[in-house]
Amino acid sequence: MAKDRNMLFGIHSVGEWLRADPSRFESLLVAPGGNDRVQKLVNRARDCGIPVETLPKQRLQGMAGPRNAQGVGARVKPFPYADLDLVLEAVEVEPLLLIVDGVTDPGNLGAIIRSAAFFGVHAILLPRDRSAIIGPVVERSAAGAAATVPICQINSLLGALQMLLQRGFIGVASVVGGHPHPAEQDLTGPVVLMVGSEGKGLRPSLRKAATLKTSLPSVGPASLNVSAFAGVLLYEAARQRRDS
Amino acid sequence: MAKDRNMLFGIHSVGEWLRADPSRFESLLVAPGGNDRVQKLVNRARDCGIPVETLPKQRLQGMAGPRNAQGVGARVKPFPYADLDLVLEAVEVEPLLLIVDGVTDPGNLGAIIRSAAFFGVHAILLPRDRSAIIGPVVERSAAGAAATVPICQINSLLGALQMLLQRGFIGVASVVGGHPHPAEQDLTGPVVLMVGSEGKGLRPSLRKAATLKTSLPSVGPASLNVSAFAGVLLYEAARQRRDS
Repeated sequence: MAKDRNMLFGIHSVGEWLRADPSRFESLLVAPGGNDRVQKLVNRARDCGIPVETLPKQRLQGMAGPRNAQGVGARVKPFPYADLDLVLEAVEVEPLLLIVDGVTDPGNLGAIIRSAAFFGVHAILLPRDRSAIIGPVVERSAAGAAATVPICQINSLLGALQMLLQRGFIGVASVVGGHPHPAEQDLTGPVVLMVGSEGKGLRPSLRKAATLKTSLPSVGPASLNVSAFAGVLLYEAARQRRDS
Repeated sequence: MAKDRNMLFGIHSVGEWLRADPSRFESLLVAPGGNDRVQKLVNRARDCGIPVETLPKQRLQGMAGPRNAQGVGARVKPFPYADLDLVLEAVEVEPLLLIVDGVTDPGNLGAIIRSAAFFGVHAILLPRDRSAIIGPVVERSAAGAAATVPICQINSLLGALQMLLQRGFIGVASVVGGHPHPAEQDLTGPVVLMVGSEGKGLRPSLRKAATLKTSLPSVGPASLNVSAFAGVLLYEAARQRRDS
């Protein structure tokens, strides 16, 4: 496992951060003999005045852990969490937010971040206490999307939800079984969608404070992975917003 | 990486196969000190006359590769691919099939199988030539779902598609950009959905032979992971079938 949080690996992670915030970089790390895409990143880093270190491919891969580093990495400053108030001030359409509670698997969290960016989520809210940390594994799974969607680390998710409800948001809790299908709920206004871990679901305080609850009925015998579920819920919100 | 195809690891994979087809098992492998869920699997295996081998936890985990084996594994017969004709004969509703073309990442293929099982897909069609092999990594990612949804290995995907079209199926090709949104397409009849790899997409022969094409517009700057995309497409088909 890549243990140093302040690193990035892979063409997408490095490329999106170079585009979004070159000031986050302390240095670029490349293995010799990189392809055209790696060479482009090297050129961009040099243009931004970022030092470029060359190191053996195996050593770079060893730093990255099991996932393919694609011959490129970076030493970076800590992940720049966003300020929710500033994000909300900047949004000019009906805001769509996503609370991700208790997802401790970094691959799942990265996949959710990637889908959230695709469907135009304005901010992702993560708890401090029960969540994977945004580090190289999450960033690699997010394929660069962690650079493009604001992510807020929240001391009290319940407090944040209550603040959002006061500002007119609808809080939508996803719960296993027995509640209306997402397509039967109106997700077109200011909405904060809430998904929990596969094992424990959303923490009870969030479920209780939610404006409405939704369940996705299983047609077959299987359960749905939390990142697949989040993708579906975001799709449904985007579909309704498209029609409205 | 788990290299032996004829093994299973993890509570869900082992449990679902014990339920679906105990005759697939040659032996159950457990580490000492397993929890209640592992003990239940041991009991079920013994009831089915399956030999149970105890081996050190580290050795079991070493056989499983990077993903957590959860203290349980199995030696099994090769994956029992399904026969498409027999599957179609048994379906009593409008069939929903899924072609997965060129997905070589076993984690992604497993995630797609899991979502397909959740949304009640009647069969998954995989090519022989450009696909991850159904082995322990795919099965572990599918969390047992590979035991519950029929999976067919097809020599010619184009030939299979043409046969399905002749039988009245609609072939839906997912293509990046420029085609109608999935919600604008009628997915309620006999349908075969087709998804391709993130890099290359569907092979051109399938795209060309498809009845209709669909694209999912990106709201944000990111692309969507193929397994998230497949989940969304399956959700949309299930949503329409629910309403119809």
